Amino acid sequence: MSFSVTLPDGSKKDFDKAVSVKELASSIATSLGKAAVGAKVNGAIKPVDYEINNDVEVAILTDKDEEGLDILRATAAFALEAVAKKEYPELHLGQHVADKDGFYVDTDKKDQIKVTELPNLEKAMEKLIKSGQPIEHVEMDKAVLADMIKDDPYKSELLKRVEGDKVDAYKLGDFVDFGFNALLPNTGKIKHFKLLSVAGAYWLGKSSNPMLQRIFGTAFFKEAALKDDLKRRAEIKERDHRTIGRDLDLFFVDPKVGAGLPYWMPKGATIRRVVERYIIDREVADGYQHVYTPVLMNLDAYKTSGHWAHYRDDMFPPMDMGDGEMLELRPMNCPSHIQIYKHHIRSYRDLPLRVAELGMMHRYEKSGALSGLQRVREMTLNDGHTFVALDQVQDEFAKILKLIMDVYKDFDITDYYFRLSYRDPKNTEKYFANDEMWERSQKMLKGAMDDLGLDYVEAEGEAAFYGPKLDIQTKTALGNDETMSTIQLDFMLPERFGLTYVGQDGEEHRPVMIHRGIVGTMERFIAYLTEIYKGAFPTWLAPVQAEIIPVNNEVHGEYAEKVRQELAKRGFRAEVDNRNEKLGYKIRESQTQKVPYTLVLGDDEMKANGVNVRPYGTEEENSMSLDEFIKEIDADVKSYSREN
Amino acid sequence: MSFSVTLPDGSKKDFDKAVSVKELASSIATSLGKAAVGAKVNGAIKPVDYEINNDVEVAILTDKDEEGLDILRATAAFALEAVAKKEYPELHLGQHVADKDGFYVDTDKKDQIKVTELPNLEKAMEKLIKSGQPIEHVEMDKAVLADMIKDDPYKSELLKRVEGDKVDAYKLGDFVDFGFNALLPNTGKIKHFKLLSVAGAYWLGKSSNPMLQRIFGTAFFKEAALKDDLKRRAEIKERDHRTIGRDLDLFFVDPKVGAGLPYWMPKGATIRRVVERYIIDREVADGYQHVYTPVLMNLDAYKTSGHWAHYRDDMFPPMDMGDGEMLELRPMNCPSHIQIYKHHIRSYRDLPLRVAELGMMHRYEKSGALSGLQRVREMTLNDGHTFVALDQVQDEFAKILKLIMDVYKDFDITDYYFRLSYRDPKNTEKYFANDEMWERSQKMLKGAMDDLGLDYVEAEGEAAFYGPKLDIQTKTALGNDETMSTIQLDFMLPERFGLTYVGQDGEEHRPVMIHRGIVGTMERFIAYLTEIYKGAFPTWLAPVQAEIIPVNNEVHGEYAEKVRQELAKRGFRAEVDNRNEKLGYKIRESQTQKVPYTLVLGDDEMKANGVNVRPYGTEEENSMSLDEFIKEIDADVKSYSREN
Repeated sequence: MSFSVTLPDGSKKDFDKAVSVKELASSIATSLGKAAVGAKVNGAIKPVDYEINNDVEVAILTDKDEEGLDILRATAAFALEAVAKKEYPELHLGQHVADKDGFYVDTDKKDQIKVTELPNLEKAMEKLIKSGQPIEHVEMDKAVLADMIKDDPYKSELLKRVEGDKVDAYKLGDFVDFGFNALLPNTGKIKHFKLLSVAGAYWLGKSSNPMLQRIFGTAFFKEAALKDDLKRRAEIKERDHRTIGRDLDLFFVDPKVGAGLPYWMPKGATIRRVVERYIIDREVADGYQHVYTPVLMNLDAYKTSGHWAHYRDDMFPPMDMGDGEMLELRPMNCPSHIQIYKHHIRSYRDLPLRVAELGMMHRYEKSGALSGLQRVREMTLNDGHTFVALDQVQDEFAKILKLIMDVYKDFDITDYYFRLSYRDPKNTEKYFANDEMWERSQKMLKGAMDDLGLDYVEAEGEAAFYGPKLDIQTKTALGNDETMSTIQLDFMLPERFGLTYVGQDGEEHRPVMIHRGIVGTMERFIAYLTEIYKGAFPTWLAPVQAEIIPVNNEVHGEYAEKVRQELAKRGFRAEVDNRNEKLGYKIRESQTQKVPYTLVLGDDEMKANGVNVRPYGTEEENSMSLDEFIKEIDADVKSYSREN
Repeated sequence: MSFSVTLPDGSKKDFDKAVSVKELASSIATSLGKAAVGAKVNGAIKPVDYEINNDVEVAILTDKDEEGLDILRATAAFALEAVAKKEYPELHLGQHVADKDGFYVDTDKKDQIKVTELPNLEKAMEKLIKSGQPIEHVEMDKAVLADMIKDDPYKSELLKRVEGDKVDAYKLGDFVDFGFNALLPNTGKIKHFKLLSVAGAYWLGKSSNPMLQRIFGTAFFKEAALKDDLKRRAEIKERDHRTIGRDLDLFFVDPKVGAGLPYWMPKGATIRRVVERYIIDREVADGYQHVYTPVLMNLDAYKTSGHWAHYRDDMFPPMDMGDGEMLELRPMNCPSHIQIYKHHIRSYRDLPLRVAELGMMHRYEKSGALSGLQRVREMTLNDGHTFVALDQVQDEFAKILKLIMDVYKDFDITDYYFRLSYRDPKNTEKYFANDEMWERSQKMLKGAMDDLGLDYVEAEGEAAFYGPKLDIQTKTALGNDETMSTIQLDFMLPERFGLTYVGQDGEEHRPVMIHRGIVGTMERFIAYLTEIYKGAFPTWLAPVQAEIIPVNNEVHGEYAEKVRQELAKRGFRAEVDNRNEKLGYKIRESQTQKVPYTLVLGDDEMKANGVNVRPYGTEEENSMSLDEFIKEIDADVKSYSREN
């Protein structure tokens, strides 16, 4: 036997007998032998006891490597399984996962595991870690293992999916499990971990299957890294639109009635309605013609557009209408707006023709990818398509960009940057073939940006198939880049759908289509706003703008209702809290609900036809007349709560 | 041979040899023999030469009978076919129909028949009628006929569908056709007819089939009846929302991209948006909580609700999402609003809980039944569901009714009546079983109507399965009854979905659900408004409220734009007509488009910062300052163009 191991730096080590990962590491450096938590062998993650006996590429993994962290977290998941099974002997185990987000373990027991039980499980894990139990890595006969786990229906099901007669398994005393790339050899090596939360998850992700309890956790080699991560998680949670959405009763999603299909509760719906009216009015004032077009369309249109060929995986299944018609829930609104264009013969006098819509669309996202309002299957896009002559592109582009920035100002969106995406001229397959068009249009966009004096990032090879584009990138609460707005030139769809206009020369010409979105989908935009405002919506957007609290329901209830009516009459959203609760409780509750103005009404206010105003997030308490307050809230709303 | 014929009055006539319909009629009365155009023999319509030779019931048909008119119209259709085939030998014939609306014939030729060709066809028909050609009624061998019509693919296809070896056919010279119950024996008997219009129609109604040209016509025995009918058709056409919708560019439907799926053009969309905002604001002010809920739902919910069992034929095909989930486009919004109710534990303090939505729904209507905005497959309903305790039903009912009538006032809807629908207590199958509930709730509705001092019609056996209801019936432009608004009590869905609230007694109770609609679907409501206003929408609804026409584009164009901006700034919808057209043409065009105010701006107006106002439908021409006009149009909009 003779083989050679290639290391990441390209150097080779020759061996004439089998060698374990740990031995290999030690042979490189004693310290590396000690630090090794596993290895990548020909790209696959293996444990330290893995035996190497032929020509392979090996990279030793330590606590410095991401994959090393995965091994640690897998070991923590294994330890959690072992203690859970010990604490609740009747519990069944489902899938386990360890990755860059931490780890999770699916469990099923009659009394579902609750978040309050996590501290107990943590304690049991800590004990197990302290006691430093060896984790045995064994190759087992599948039949033997199947017999050992026969009482666990989920594990049995998972075992059936393993190919071959042998299974790679790990043992901790009586407990045995499989399906890991690599684990650490001893529980003592887990060190810093934390159980985070519990959530329902369908077995294998199918909604027709039983709901299991998924326990989430994380683990790190260093205590400081764990602390940083927990702090980051707390911050994200505080801003997470799903948490705020639940606390402020804005929306919910229930996979039992439809995965990725949000229900907007009255307060969330109010915010959405204000945003929708705002954006429509802005667009109409800017020369857009708003339309309503159907969410369904003959599948043929998406064959013409190319969506069916290139985008099919993201589309809903077509519906056979039984009379030869196949209808499709639209994944995009462009073909619909093309119908609007085509409905009349168009002349150069009609251009630019600006068609806009709050267009509902449906996209098939995998159920695992769905998340709150951020990733959904039904969405309403602030969509618009401008049809222009080629020489109008630059002006129209600048006009759209100005509208976007005006809108950003009103929503107080300040953290964004511009990204111009060009084609990669070498990649002829990926891009619509028309060199002159690409050169000219890319120059136009760049020219417009330069004329406006705006900074931008250029990204070659990031353009859409059909033309160059400008994306405006914002940051989410989690610090991720997200495309908020987009302006995309399209030379292809006008061609495919045979769009024309009669020019001044009396001849037929081909228009250019500009796809543009200002605030994206209502779903994602309101998720975004919820996160940037941490739920404290500015007054013009707040679902309840003024919470009116009578000091004594009996005595001041009538006056409170009068104040509410005065505000409602002027279009402000106010409500009276006349529950039988203590004054202090109601005031705190109004703050928790992040209502911009809390009005407390007692004897003094009633006498003076006044209000005592507590603006949200301040310690202020201002007495003023109702008229003065109306002036104040009116100015607040009209200025979009901006400080100018 | 011996048989007896039973006449409509029950009397019998005995015969001992076969007798034709005409002979039978003559045997009753000579005049009847002359007047006979056919007969109903055991309920089936037969021609005058039809031979009776056994015991049957016979009613002789004359020009006084509806079925007699059908025979006349079938004969006219046959004559049209014959002349069309003669005029255009290469033309193929499809289906023919004669009924109470007139008749039509489907045709296919390379250069599609246009409406301008109808006068020629009419002339040819008149000639044929004048010449009094005999129409021969023959029984033919199917094979022989098949050979004769083998060049006509549609007729050949239709012939294949005829059962047996023999075919009942009619001949006119060389021309032969089949598929008629009865024709008159001579073209001379057709007399008064008219060809009306041409429209595309898919062969056999399937959108995957070729599009044929359908020629519509009508015929009468008396000239006066034809004249009346043509007048009625002209009136209907003048009000027909499809005609107005096309002329004013409000909407279109294109079966090629989706049958029954309307596209709202900018002007139609503007009207709809004004209506939507109006109705939402009215409802919110009245205590409704507006929500947005998904158009898709798990099919299971419609199994629970009973829609899948009882309403399946009207529903779209379910979509298999591939992970065990079957999604259905909702046919109704009730199960969605039930999810909103169920999302929280409800107490008596939450009731009445008023959930409302402009809810998009999909219903499968047969393609033949689709019509403009009136009968569509995708619609948005002004829907609402109020959840109440049983003892709140009467008050809530009265409150809803008041809202409906207030809304009617704003839209100037005056021609309506109330219909209370009860169960038929004898029909235990058709109605949800709970005698006490029915008695009590019917009494509540009646009590509320009586308290309000309103007249109403009572309709036993017209209630929904789940509870009694009040319908408000309006008249369409065609004089048909249409349900505009509805208030329906529902005791069943709260049961099926297990809805509860915690009462003052701390116990769980079952709420009652009230389904209510104020203006119905946006589609049908705007079709209705278009017809009652004949397209002359009141200012608050008009898509363009003021058409601004500069006398001279060069000289007064800038001032016109200034006036537009002043109006737009205040939320009015104004546009400038600066086309290179004559002033008179532009003014006429503004009238044709039924714009409420036409503003003509020349030297005088520009000097005085004024406008010359021509209100729609008047001969008036008023000069006033722009400020005065703004006051006038503002008052007009705010009063919903009512005269008070």
